[in-house]
Amino acid sequence: MRKWSRSMGEQKYRKFIKRSQQEPNVDELFKRVLDGDRMFLSKAITFIESNAPRHEKAAGELMQRLLPHTGNSIRIGITGVPGAGKSTFIETFGLMLCNLGHRVAVLAVDPSSTVRGGSILGDKTRMEQLSKHPNAFIRPSPSGGTLGGVHRKTRETILACEAAGYDVILVETVGVGQSEGVVRGMVDFFMMLAITGAGDELQGMKKGIMELVDAIIINKADGSNVELAKKTAREFKQILHFVQSPTDGWTPRALPCSSLKGTGIKEVWEMIQQFATETKLSGVFESRRKKQAKDWLHALIHERLQKLFFEHAEIKKLMPKMEHQVMNEELTVKGACDQLFSVFNRN
Amino acid sequence: MRKWSRSMGEQKYRKFIKRSQQEPNVDELFKRVLDGDRMFLSKAITFIESNAPRHEKAAGELMQRLLPHTGNSIRIGITGVPGAGKSTFIETFGLMLCNLGHRVAVLAVDPSSTVRGGSILGDKTRMEQLSKHPNAFIRPSPSGGTLGGVHRKTRETILACEAAGYDVILVETVGVGQSEGVVRGMVDFFMMLAITGAGDELQGMKKGIMELVDAIIINKADGSNVELAKKTAREFKQILHFVQSPTDGWTPRALPCSSLKGTGIKEVWEMIQQFATETKLSGVFESRRKKQAKDWLHALIHERLQKLFFEHAEIKKLMPKMEHQVMNEELTVKGACDQLFSVFNRN
Repeated sequence: MRKWSRSMGEQKYRKFIKRSQQEPNVDELFKRVLDGDRMFLSKAITFIESNAPRHEKAAGELMQRLLPHTGNSIRIGITGVPGAGKSTFIETFGLMLCNLGHRVAVLAVDPSSTVRGGSILGDKTRMEQLSKHPNAFIRPSPSGGTLGGVHRKTRETILACEAAGYDVILVETVGVGQSEGVVRGMVDFFMMLAITGAGDELQGMKKGIMELVDAIIINKADGSNVELAKKTAREFKQILHFVQSPTDGWTPRALPCSSLKGTGIKEVWEMIQQFATETKLSGVFESRRKKQAKDWLHALIHERLQKLFFEHAEIKKLMPKMEHQVMNEELTVKGACDQLFSVFNRN
Repeated sequence: MRKWSRSMGEQKYRKFIKRSQQEPNVDELFKRVLDGDRMFLSKAITFIESNAPRHEKAAGELMQRLLPHTGNSIRIGITGVPGAGKSTFIETFGLMLCNLGHRVAVLAVDPSSTVRGGSILGDKTRMEQLSKHPNAFIRPSPSGGTLGGVHRKTRETILACEAAGYDVILVETVGVGQSEGVVRGMVDFFMMLAITGAGDELQGMKKGIMELVDAIIINKADGSNVELAKKTAREFKQILHFVQSPTDGWTPRALPCSSLKGTGIKEVWEMIQQFATETKLSGVFESRRKKQAKDWLHALIHERLQKLFFEHAEIKKLMPKMEHQVMNEELTVKGACDQLFSVFNRN
């Protein structure tokens, strides 16, 4: 990229800035990301996340070039009810990893941010110390678009971070709607943060979440809460016993920890390392990643097909009428479908 | 349809039979179904369920003609773990309704029948008395094809039964895979049959099922089991209290009954009548049916799109290569998707 100099003059300067913002240099982005440059990684992700059609081709090229340099990480998904202390846990856990020499990227899948505007990771103040550590990279949830869009962007961001040398990827979710299933589909290890409390830990839990987790971490096991947390961990262990594990050959664990005191955090990392070792030996690690890539392809095909159909000009015109007739029993569902497809197939 | 007479001779007879089996007369089917003729209803359903492309147009025409005569029923979904006594319950419940003057159709959604060959309603001996009652019509689960296929066929069968004057439609499911959600999407009232037993009633339950039910019926409340069944009903009521009801304005109930002794069966029907009255008054009944029809249209569109894409000759050839390259990180998911769609859009 050509450097700007005062001599270029105001108008030229504006043009230069505009172009360099709009059309990033793929070569430079590629090299700087591989060098592990945080600022350029940020730029690359902004570029990848861009919804502008003019960025699409170059962003695709960048991803294709980064691809051979991806994969060298453990991808960890983290969910938990609000108040379970996800931010504090990630701060403590991430700092420990950074201090062990790991490079830690923290990403987020938060479909609510597209609706409410606010994001779970909008402010880095949430993880103040971690965000300042040179080994850490924190990226808020991509905004705009559907969960499918957030999904795609986050998956590509994981790959970009790996290419930049981050070897621990933490993907956080608030657990709105289907987001836990989406995150489970992009990570190697998935854990839920829970807290103690009279039965609340069960009632607040989303149905189906137990089948997704490789571990439940009972946070806030400190002070007078230690014994209760241990008891809750035992109770969760019993429940997990009845549930199908998401990972072949791995029995989900329940561990207490305190993000505040830093106790039990080391044990969480040891467990994840054990998980990685065992599943890599058994081949489950690799086969899950392959399956995830394949599933992602199919999800993308689905999304593209939907778009092709529902944004088709004539379909858009015909659809409300068909829906109305079907809802009012004037036309069979199959008849409506036939009419729509005869329009769709004509082009 | 022309009647066959001996004078036609053997060869002509064979031709006649073959043609009349292959190409049903839509006019006659329509009239006889409206007359409530059970044999012709059966024929019409076989015709509707046919996967033969040559039947498609005429079957669509038949459904379109029947449509204005549908809707006059209460559609009731029934699920329950194996051993909960679904057959006995339907036999007792159905007979009571028939004796009250109702016309009762019993259908089934059993995706396992497409895999295992055996169907939950394969033999009418399961409901011996009910199957002999002139007011009852029992139809086994359609076989062949995906859950989506079973789904479509069962929905059209419901409509055909309604056109034939059946005013209570019971849709049974074994609860394999996603079938409960599918059945919930085609009925007005959904109930689960459960039995008593030390905690088993909870452990055997599928996650997410509680959010689907309008009632839980604790069957086998007879003999020494009566008190236990009542206790179980109370426990279920407590759990239901924490769960979002699937029907606006209706609080899900838990009732004990004995299909063997016939006790509590009347109360189940009274509850369903109350449900129908209340939801019809509030508009929830009608709006759910409209939404179900719309959802069905979208499900059918989805199915048709998938077929169009994945059965496209060139896509079929290209897909394994794309999947392979994506799984082995030789090609980005987006890159693979682009290649597939450039082929798909060419035609």
